[in-house]
Amino acid sequence: MGSLRNPVVGYYSEETRNYKKIELAGTFELLTLLGNISVKDEKPFAHLHVTLGNASGDVFGGHLIKGEVFVAELYIRELLGEPLVRKERGNNLSLWDEEPL
Amino acid sequence: MGSLRNPVVGYYSEETRNYKKIELAGTFELLTLLGNISVKDEKPFAHLHVTLGNASGDVFGGHLIKGEVFVAELYIRELLGEPLVRKERGNNLSLWDEEPL
Amino acid sequence: MGSLRNPVVGYYSEETRNYKKIELAGTFELLTLLGNISVKDEKPFAHLHVTLGNASGDVFGGHLIKGEVFVAELYIRELLGEPLVRKERGNNLSLWDEEPL
Repeated sequence: MGSLRNPVVGYYSEETRNYKKIELAGTFELLTLLGNISVKDEKPFAHLHVTLGNASGDVFGGHLIKGEVFVAELYIRELLGEPLVRKERGNNLSLWDEEPL
Repeated sequence: MGSLRNPVVGYYSEETRNYKKIELAGTFELLTLLGNISVKDEKPFAHLHVTLGNASGDVFGGHLIKGEVFVAELYIRELLGEPLVRKERGNNLSLWDEEPL
Repeated sequence: MGSLRNPVVGYYSEETRNYKKIELAGTFELLTLLGNISVKDEKPFAHLHVTLGNASGDVFGGHLIKGEVFVAELYIRELLGEPLVRKERGNNLSLWDEEPL
């Protein structure tokens, strides 16, 4: 929660198998920032989705690519257990292994 | 967080006392999926609200009725204590009992 | 999660250093309500951001100023440790102290 300046979000297209970049100009209220930090290529990797509000109350959002933080209040919870590891699946998506429950 | 194909969301109308169905065509970034699983008719019952982003970064959302999962990363937390039980309130809403705090 | 009647949300303008009020008429699905309760002027102070869906599935949102609760299902988690205290920063924003990690 907070404010982001000039955020860039992505939309994953199943057709092109790529993220389309959406550049948003101005400062937006950061309404939600939800996601997780897991492991990719042996390094911490954040996967975050955002919703953003403008001065009219309209909301935009997507997969967070970047944005300059004006203010941010975050809550991060450590989850213990087996590390979740992302692997590239041949479609520009790095996903965790699926396992039977 | 993830992607949903052809999601259907609902809007509860106080006037008609019913959910209006909103059918969204295409694949959407699942920006938020928040809610809870409690008990209704002695069975687990999920109540979920979503926000969904399209290829332009526009955001839609409502009470989740259905949607095909393309990718989903979820965090579910078990809350111990008295079970929360939903009961139909005569207006097509199944709510928990209110209790004095 | 739930429904709010006639919510009023705010957008903080870096230029005017003030919140612009956005009044939304009608009943909206409360899609997300995220935030925190910390301490300001020695009293509990809630800072909440919302996203709200209308009967067409369009989404609006911002910093929650007020709204009449029709239904609300909330999860509040107590975080123990040093209290987070907000202080006015001369720009109508009350923020926590930044500390080196």
